[in-house]
Amino acid sequence: MNIPTFIDVEKAHKVVAKYAHHTPVLTSASINEIVGGQLFFKCENFQKVGAFKFRGACNAVFSLTDEEAQKGVATHSSGNHAAALALAARMRGIEAHIVMPENSPEIKKKAVAGYGANITFCKPTLQARESTLAKVVEETGATEIHPYNNFFVIAGQGTAAKELIENIGEFDSILAPVGGGGLLGGTAISTKKLLPACKVIAAEPAGADDAYRSFYSKTWVPSENPQTIADGLLTSLGKRNFQIMLDKVDDVVTVSEESIVAAMRMIWERMKIIIEPSSAVPLAAILEKKVDVQHKRVGIILSGGNLDLGKLPF
Amino acid sequence: MNIPTFIDVEKAHKVVAKYAHHTPVLTSASINEIVGGQLFFKCENFQKVGAFKFRGACNAVFSLTDEEAQKGVATHSSGNHAAALALAARMRGIEAHIVMPENSPEIKKKAVAGYGANITFCKPTLQARESTLAKVVEETGATEIHPYNNFFVIAGQGTAAKELIENIGEFDSILAPVGGGGLLGGTAISTKKLLPACKVIAAEPAGADDAYRSFYSKTWVPSENPQTIADGLLTSLGKRNFQIMLDKVDDVVTVSEESIVAAMRMIWERMKIIIEPSSAVPLAAILEKKVDVQHKRVGIILSGGNLDLGKLPF
Repeated sequence: MNIPTFIDVEKAHKVVAKYAHHTPVLTSASINEIVGGQLFFKCENFQKVGAFKFRGACNAVFSLTDEEAQKGVATHSSGNHAAALALAARMRGIEAHIVMPENSPEIKKKAVAGYGANITFCKPTLQARESTLAKVVEETGATEIHPYNNFFVIAGQGTAAKELIENIGEFDSILAPVGGGGLLGGTAISTKKLLPACKVIAAEPAGADDAYRSFYSKTWVPSENPQTIADGLLTSLGKRNFQIMLDKVDDVVTVSEESIVAAMRMIWERMKIIIEPSSAVPLAAILEKKVDVQHKRVGIILSGGNLDLGKLPF
Repeated sequence: MNIPTFIDVEKAHKVVAKYAHHTPVLTSASINEIVGGQLFFKCENFQKVGAFKFRGACNAVFSLTDEEAQKGVATHSSGNHAAALALAARMRGIEAHIVMPENSPEIKKKAVAGYGANITFCKPTLQARESTLAKVVEETGATEIHPYNNFFVIAGQGTAAKELIENIGEFDSILAPVGGGGLLGGTAISTKKLLPACKVIAAEPAGADDAYRSFYSKTWVPSENPQTIADGLLTSLGKRNFQIMLDKVDDVVTVSEESIVAAMRMIWERMKIIIEPSSAVPLAAILEKKVDVQHKRVGIILSGGNLDLGKLPF
């Protein structure tokens, strides 16, 4: 199983810097006062397609040979990865074949269609998604780009933490949410190379704690019937990312749904930016005092800002 | 009646730059595609206290002589100006006396109290506000700082457009919402000096169109029973700002409530930033095609980002 190194993140960054936004790092004096430390938020909610996912998709699409590329790319996703892959493919001028569960939110279907992808709808089960994707790949010869268990995707996601560290400098710890683990894996690779003494901490909803259980049992545990408002973190941890986690992540902490909503509202109210629930999970861990930030410099990757404004938790 | 000139804005900027944020200018490729022009949003929602009001309050407070300052400042306000004046006073280490209607939102009362101001509550009528303020001023000797019809406040608000032009360069037009007219007045002073050919356009809710009626009748018309979701724009136009408007503003356009909500949602969804309804009024005017932006470079002042997340219009 190939695991990317920081050299792969550096290569990825040459591609990603050309097509993605170099997102800003924001701070909030009032949140710093509340938590007693200095927090630096890397705003991937301002990234193209509204999420860090564009970095990985972009790197995967532009890492294909011309021969591979002409047959297009394919994935199954109901979320940000679908939109990210569709846009990256459009930028390279190749086809994207996206398998989406038929019950995906209308707004996501529209976004993916808007980027010109070919959408195939399927029943909303993992089995249907995988079998439909297999059929699409067989028919088209497209390269499957997994949303998080893909070498180039992980390397691409690592560019967010690389930019954060290059822009701000030293950190005592860097926090990222963990779902499939692509963002966490990439973050750990960049951080441990650039700042070996800096802790990398994963934050996860208690209702979807497969990474927590995998990390502490040192055995990969799948996500079973996860329940959380942080809809980007429902998936099982990727096997590659599990390896990176055992090697480079210092801690995994879990948080309640109430804390996620409180942290999300705090960021909306105090920073005037829109983040999706998954992005609020690291701050939730700080508010629950699961991570000590007293007098420390702490980086937080805000993963994205896509959510249905008609269905807010407050 | 003293009207500030650009020299006063430049003086104000020396003060404001020390205490206020130099807010970022954001753009959105997808909104540009929708409207067919290049829009540049000056993000005063990221300003201290969440609104441009801090610029004017700051300039007014720091323009006082030491003798004046030691008696404090006073105003009546249920909104952003109260918080702005309270914070500016705290920064100068002087007292702020704020008269607030007793039915002000709890969140505003808390914010003003949080900045250490002395709050006097009164009945929610203009008469009660004015008589209570007169009493407070008589008792304390504090200097009244009017929220928008004040020389130093207007000069302070002009620093937002000054920064926008200094950062981005040429514009075909610059749009600001108009309520009391402090922001509009300051914007017009800076714009007509730095970019004489650039149009200055005021955008106003049709349900609170006193500036529109004043501008086109060339007679000051008070705001009577205004109705709009843009709660920052309910007040009557200041007399000083009316003069500036006749002299330097090219057009006033009005928009529907539906357009304000649609524009606000568009900015939330596409730009992932939180703005209050008043901030959405200029984009609403563009969406209603009341302002032509085709192939043009257009600056928009986003006035603030304070609103009750529990009472959203979508």
